Amino acid sequence: MPSVTAKHAGLNGSSNGAPRITGKATPSKLQANKMVYFFGKTRVDGEASMKALLGGKGANLADMCSIGLPVPPGFTITTDTCAAYYQAGQRLPVGLMNEVHKYINMLEKETDKKFGSAENPLLVSVRSGAAVSMPGMMDTVLNLGLTDAAVEGLAKLTGNRRFAYDSYRRLINMFGDVVMGIPHELFEHAFKVVKQKYKAETDNDVPEQGIVDLCEAYKEVFRKRVGEIFPQNPFKQLELAIEAVFKSWNGDRAVSYRRIQGIQGLKGTAVNIQTMVFGNMGEDSGTGVGFTRNPTTGDNKFYGDFLINAQGEDVVAGIRTPKLIDEMPKWQKKCYEQLLKIKQKLEKHYKDMQDIEFTIERGVLYMLQTRTGKRTGQAAVKIACDMVKERLITEKEALVRIPAGDLSQLLFPGFDASKKKIGKLLTRGIAASPGAAVGKIAFTAGEAVMRKLNGEKVILVRDETSPEDVEGMHKAEGILTSTGGRSSHAAVVAVGWGKCCVVGAGDLHIDAKAKKVHVKGEVLGPDDVISIDGTTGEVFAGAIPTVIPDKLSGDFGTIMRWSDKYRTLGIRTNADTPADARRAREFGASGIGLCRTEHMFFDPERITSMREMILADNEADRRKALDKLLPHQRDDFVGIFTAMKGLPVTIRLIDPPLHEFLPHDDAGQSAVAKSLGVSAEKVRRRVSELHEANPMLGHRGCRLCLTYPEILEMQVRAIVEAMLDCQANGIKAMPEIMHPLVGTKKEIEKLRQMTIDTINKVKTEKGWTKRIEIPIGTMIEVPRAALIADTVAQDADFFSFGTNDLTQMTFGYSRDDINNFLPAYLEQEILEIDPFVSLDQTGVGQLVKMGAERGRQTNPKLKVGICGEHGGDPKSVHFFHKAGLDYVSCSPFRVPIARLAAAQAAILVEMGK
Amino acid sequence: MPSVTAKHAGLNGSSNGAPRITGKATPSKLQANKMVYFFGKTRVDGEASMKALLGGKGANLADMCSIGLPVPPGFTITTDTCAAYYQAGQRLPVGLMNEVHKYINMLEKETDKKFGSAENPLLVSVRSGAAVSMPGMMDTVLNLGLTDAAVEGLAKLTGNRRFAYDSYRRLINMFGDVVMGIPHELFEHAFKVVKQKYKAETDNDVPEQGIVDLCEAYKEVFRKRVGEIFPQNPFKQLELAIEAVFKSWNGDRAVSYRRIQGIQGLKGTAVNIQTMVFGNMGEDSGTGVGFTRNPTTGDNKFYGDFLINAQGEDVVAGIRTPKLIDEMPKWQKKCYEQLLKIKQKLEKHYKDMQDIEFTIERGVLYMLQTRTGKRTGQAAVKIACDMVKERLITEKEALVRIPAGDLSQLLFPGFDASKKKIGKLLTRGIAASPGAAVGKIAFTAGEAVMRKLNGEKVILVRDETSPEDVEGMHKAEGILTSTGGRSSHAAVVAVGWGKCCVVGAGDLHIDAKAKKVHVKGEVLGPDDVISIDGTTGEVFAGAIPTVIPDKLSGDFGTIMRWSDKYRTLGIRTNADTPADARRAREFGASGIGLCRTEHMFFDPERITSMREMILADNEADRRKALDKLLPHQRDDFVGIFTAMKGLPVTIRLIDPPLHEFLPHDDAGQSAVAKSLGVSAEKVRRRVSELHEANPMLGHRGCRLCLTYPEILEMQVRAIVEAMLDCQANGIKAMPEIMHPLVGTKKEIEKLRQMTIDTINKVKTEKGWTKRIEIPIGTMIEVPRAALIADTVAQDADFFSFGTNDLTQMTFGYSRDDINNFLPAYLEQEILEIDPFVSLDQTGVGQLVKMGAERGRQTNPKLKVGICGEHGGDPKSVHFFHKAGLDYVSCSPFRVPIARLAAAQAAILVEMGK
Repeated sequence: MPSVTAKHAGLNGSSNGAPRITGKATPSKLQANKMVYFFGKTRVDGEASMKALLGGKGANLADMCSIGLPVPPGFTITTDTCAAYYQAGQRLPVGLMNEVHKYINMLEKETDKKFGSAENPLLVSVRSGAAVSMPGMMDTVLNLGLTDAAVEGLAKLTGNRRFAYDSYRRLINMFGDVVMGIPHELFEHAFKVVKQKYKAETDNDVPEQGIVDLCEAYKEVFRKRVGEIFPQNPFKQLELAIEAVFKSWNGDRAVSYRRIQGIQGLKGTAVNIQTMVFGNMGEDSGTGVGFTRNPTTGDNKFYGDFLINAQGEDVVAGIRTPKLIDEMPKWQKKCYEQLLKIKQKLEKHYKDMQDIEFTIERGVLYMLQTRTGKRTGQAAVKIACDMVKERLITEKEALVRIPAGDLSQLLFPGFDASKKKIGKLLTRGIAASPGAAVGKIAFTAGEAVMRKLNGEKVILVRDETSPEDVEGMHKAEGILTSTGGRSSHAAVVAVGWGKCCVVGAGDLHIDAKAKKVHVKGEVLGPDDVISIDGTTGEVFAGAIPTVIPDKLSGDFGTIMRWSDKYRTLGIRTNADTPADARRAREFGASGIGLCRTEHMFFDPERITSMREMILADNEADRRKALDKLLPHQRDDFVGIFTAMKGLPVTIRLIDPPLHEFLPHDDAGQSAVAKSLGVSAEKVRRRVSELHEANPMLGHRGCRLCLTYPEILEMQVRAIVEAMLDCQANGIKAMPEIMHPLVGTKKEIEKLRQMTIDTINKVKTEKGWTKRIEIPIGTMIEVPRAALIADTVAQDADFFSFGTNDLTQMTFGYSRDDINNFLPAYLEQEILEIDPFVSLDQTGVGQLVKMGAERGRQTNPKLKVGICGEHGGDPKSVHFFHKAGLDYVSCSPFRVPIARLAAAQAAILVEMGK
Repeated sequence: MPSVTAKHAGLNGSSNGAPRITGKATPSKLQANKMVYFFGKTRVDGEASMKALLGGKGANLADMCSIGLPVPPGFTITTDTCAAYYQAGQRLPVGLMNEVHKYINMLEKETDKKFGSAENPLLVSVRSGAAVSMPGMMDTVLNLGLTDAAVEGLAKLTGNRRFAYDSYRRLINMFGDVVMGIPHELFEHAFKVVKQKYKAETDNDVPEQGIVDLCEAYKEVFRKRVGEIFPQNPFKQLELAIEAVFKSWNGDRAVSYRRIQGIQGLKGTAVNIQTMVFGNMGEDSGTGVGFTRNPTTGDNKFYGDFLINAQGEDVVAGIRTPKLIDEMPKWQKKCYEQLLKIKQKLEKHYKDMQDIEFTIERGVLYMLQTRTGKRTGQAAVKIACDMVKERLITEKEALVRIPAGDLSQLLFPGFDASKKKIGKLLTRGIAASPGAAVGKIAFTAGEAVMRKLNGEKVILVRDETSPEDVEGMHKAEGILTSTGGRSSHAAVVAVGWGKCCVVGAGDLHIDAKAKKVHVKGEVLGPDDVISIDGTTGEVFAGAIPTVIPDKLSGDFGTIMRWSDKYRTLGIRTNADTPADARRAREFGASGIGLCRTEHMFFDPERITSMREMILADNEADRRKALDKLLPHQRDDFVGIFTAMKGLPVTIRLIDPPLHEFLPHDDAGQSAVAKSLGVSAEKVRRRVSELHEANPMLGHRGCRLCLTYPEILEMQVRAIVEAMLDCQANGIKAMPEIMHPLVGTKKEIEKLRQMTIDTINKVKTEKGWTKRIEIPIGTMIEVPRAALIADTVAQDADFFSFGTNDLTQMTFGYSRDDINNFLPAYLEQEILEIDPFVSLDQTGVGQLVKMGAERGRQTNPKLKVGICGEHGGDPKSVHFFHKAGLDYVSCSPFRVPIARLAAAQAAILVEMGK
């Protein structure tokens, strides 16, 4: 038996994520102490702006009445009344029920029915409705007003006794469940007994008498459980229902929902009492839900489903397959045409795509609800652009209503939804980096590289990945790991590249040696093709066809153009290769904000020289090894400068601890020893010397260049030589040199001098006579650097907040280890969100603001940006805009998101938000 | 042949470490641009308060003249002039040498001698002298003014040609070495040749003609090396010497000394040019050094050494054994009595113990130097107390002049007398700096540094030490030399640091190259452990156990009493055992500020249950294991509460990551598996699950109790039960519960609630009816906690800054790994001092101030303390006093130091400093 309560979970719900622009704020008809607001054809007390007082639903119903939509009349008890209920120690305010009586009378007049009448009974629904939508706070009670007498009235009125009693048993069930807290199973059991008695297969097979019997059985359940008979006075029913709604405001579900959603400052819930209409009164009745435009594609075409002879809950419950709205003219042409007119009216009124519910009772259309409809990223973009063309909204309004993060849906290939069944769903992991990837299984990074070179498409499948795997990760179509979370190495690297990645798929048991993956009884090998969905976390056996969205053209391009028009924040990218640089440039990046130099050292050609450098016993030998790396670094920079010609490229000097460049297993160490002609013992010793208890807080960042200045000299030399090579070829190279992990004034002072000295040395050697302008700056990623930013800024041309490390150190959270407690912390709501995903504005944000302000105090010309993962997170981008930063830098695929988020931030600040 | 240069490293030098109260700050005779200040019988330009301008020595010489002491006249070139020298790109300021001429004329008048005269030559000494004593910065040049002509004048004047030429060869040697940088060996070689020629055994055996020959040989060495003849113009000599002094200000030795001593903000060095007097003019001449009180014990008795017919450098060089000052009356009664009067005068004038140098030339006493004398901690305490009794100084003055850190010398371990036989007495040297030290032998300073970094304890064993060795001396547990006396470099430096030191152990034959020490037939190498007793001078083979001196009695007790009278900062201790708690209480701790609970789990009886808890698969099994730990924890707390009855005990709940409780090697893991009856595989898997890349930033601190609340419940239960047990026995237990590593408001909110719930649960179970008052607080050790302290304080009764972790996270330095770059950072002066030793006031200090201020904003009753290592560092204590903290908590042995430092801070703040 299906649930008879209407847990509405359709595509409905207000569009969240996108900031909203609301209309006028002062309700014109507000009266002191007025507890009840009527809406109907004859009179409308409320209006759309009164959400705080009437709740979203109540204000909306009033609003729909105002613009002349056919809404079943009713009235709303205010949220203030709910607050008064609690202030009075959970008692209904004096006079409330008198008012309710008065308004029921008003309803009776407008509908020409009578509450509890045995002839022509008025039935109502009772619904909660706070200022902010809180699905699941309180279920709806329908058909209220039915009694043993009124049910006969309804039977007479409709000429359908079975329908009347079915309505009655639904009321007893809902009322018992929702208002009186009777366990649902008791009703279910009673229904079962009746079905057995009448040998009915389904609910619908039960004959009229069965339903009448059922009502009796239900009333008996009620009496036994509650200790009183089911209320036969409809006002008693109403009073109890109103109080139940008020109580539900502080029920577990509601409190928990508000906490999770961070909803604060509300007074309480309103109660909406509305005349019932029935979509289940026969073949000329029905019910439906719809969107004024297609919520998936954005097409400006009415879109929805309907069911004939059904109530709203039946559409949602999915027992019967609804018909597409396009088929409606065949059934109720007049109502369909009326709906199309209403669609126009609604969009003109609300200036946004609406999500509606309607019911047709004996050929008459009633609107039950309208609200802003949720939509895909693609639809959001198209609708926004179309509505600007239709002159419904302005460019700024169009921009702020698109959830910036949803743009990622337009950038990555996805699986063709209609063809997912081609694959066999194996398991589900954490969706770490969006997109879709198809390939054969590669078990090691090396294997991935080799097979890719041989023209195969592979998915790298590992327990976890490490910096040594980057080459193979890069070559793979996608990455799948059995461990780790969104901040694991695999996830972070993949997001940076915009490569599809699923992590933490714990069902996978990977035996890399035997080249086998066991997953829920299946065994897959290197020749098996899998498909992974980085947007959902799904892992399939078999090849599922993908669809590629086309980039930055059409409406998407328009949104980007408008974004650039309104944003003031610069958008750069984090890119380490010419390919990434080119992609980011296509996506609109106005420079590179973070070019990491160490990834370059992992290339097989270079890693040997890098290791030689690390194993050297003295500076002279280190320099020899560095000399071998120099041409490679220079070539890399030439490539990147060429890709970014005319735009700044911020190059960060070496950052990771040296041990990351050496293998940690015996075999690997022996191989290194052999290739460098030293003893394995020496390699082992060096690895052990370099071992650190907490490498994150160890000998890394600028600490390396200050202890091995020759590394800095090589890197700076490579940059300058590459710059001069480019200039000589007419390519305008604009490098900026960035020192990581600075925490003291002396560090940046010395680093700056060392950098300048090397630049000048190369300049002299090359006989370059023109000025070389290379800004020198620092990352602000150690809390101390933000605290003493005023002194650091004296030796820096720019700051770039490294919000990843800054978050690690400000919280004392190691990104690599946070999964040991982060899930518990999120579950217990100690943290609202992973602070590596969205900037912790309360704590880390203070340091960002402080760093920027203090830095500019002593160096007003200071350029300030950020280059952590947060640069691509819309919420964080808003914060950075408000903090007055000059630019954010993010991975190439997040550049469009950052552009839009930056525009939204500028527009909202301009509007005073 | 001994060195003839006077590397003066006597017991001299101003007492550093203790804050000083200086007199009036404005020099009355200060003139703009005056470069030279005269001192003599006829005129004194400077005064004691002008140390910044004239250096310590110069100001002091002027001062001694002012109070009528017999000082050889001279003049001082100001430190401003040194600064001007550097500003001018290392050129002597225009007009300086004219001034010098003028003042030499003045000297000539006062002494009735003539510079460079062949009849009655004026000879001068040239010495550096900065505002702060910097021994070893620049060596002295004596006898300046001697030329081929003047030497004959001196011969005539003294009637002693050998003396005159001996003075000349000393000048050429010193001038060559110190001013021109000629290697010392060249002069030594020339001396050897002359000795061979004259078949002389010792220097003194060389006849007059030999010395005349030697002067020629030295001049030849000079000419060959410098390329010019030895300057025959005394003004040329003077000019070069003045410039050499200026240059020495930025020499390696001086820079390194300033760094080690943390000396900053000085302008440069002054140059003192003073008429020579000769202690080596015959048996009625002599020279000596002394202290107005005993610098080791503090006894109010004139203390020193003298040599007849010798120059000052001979006392220091240690070639001849000096006589004790007590023997002086037998030789020169009048001068001795004059000295005793001068002692009185000096102490009355300076109100402190003085370190003096004097010379007797042909029966006439000259004072060459006086300065505040360095002293041991014991002497500092006694002298301060005695001087208060003598009404020379006030209690407050007494307190601020004792270097608080030096109190550790009074607390330092000594060898357990009853166990000295464990070691084998090898020899006996001079007891130069008290205490006891045990370690393996390090033969060079460099070796000492390296081995210390590798975790070894070493004793630095050398023939002698020099300023270049200071780094290694600092790292060694103790210092042992085969030569030198109480005023040798090793002795002076060690006393300054309160480091155990034995000098002049002549039986030692040290072969540093072969890394062998021969001593009376024994041969020791780098792996042999020795024990040295700085109080008796004994040197033992083997490791002798040490004992801790007990209690604060006598003068020490007086100082502590006075400290408590003036300080406002509370002093608590960090103690985890009843024994530590008792000791700290004896040392005056007014509570425990940090009682770590995890150390208790390492006890063999308990570690098994702890491991069982860690290996448990579910909460029920964890609780079972915790139940076994409960009685142990309760007993521990009963012991500590009993030791601290009536005083607060702040108990920090479990802090380290769980993997610390499991062995990391295979054998250990197998043993654990066996003892717990689980598979070794399971133990291995759990260890690997618990492994973290950066455990410092991992699953530890309150993160443990939030993920395993049952641990908190067990610990809080143990505390409450122990408290109630104590109360029942009439022992007032005052626990405070502290949650570590809090970084968010929600954490402390939840922890507080969980703690209160458990307290109430135990209360109910035990049927306790009275109130249980247990303050609940948090450590502030994560930077974010300081940033959001206003919200954290809403759920905390107290804050305790964990400055160790706060330093780690604010700098991004792992304490365990910092040695990979800290030595380089100190050497390059990127850091002034190890921030784990003395609080980084600039950076970390901001967070401490911010945390305290913001916390009190929302919770005015908030108690604020600190419990990192910094709580026992005097400089840091001053900072914490100024930051308005309520208390500091430090290790038991540092409690007396903190008490004194807190009093000093209060007194200095009261004085506006």
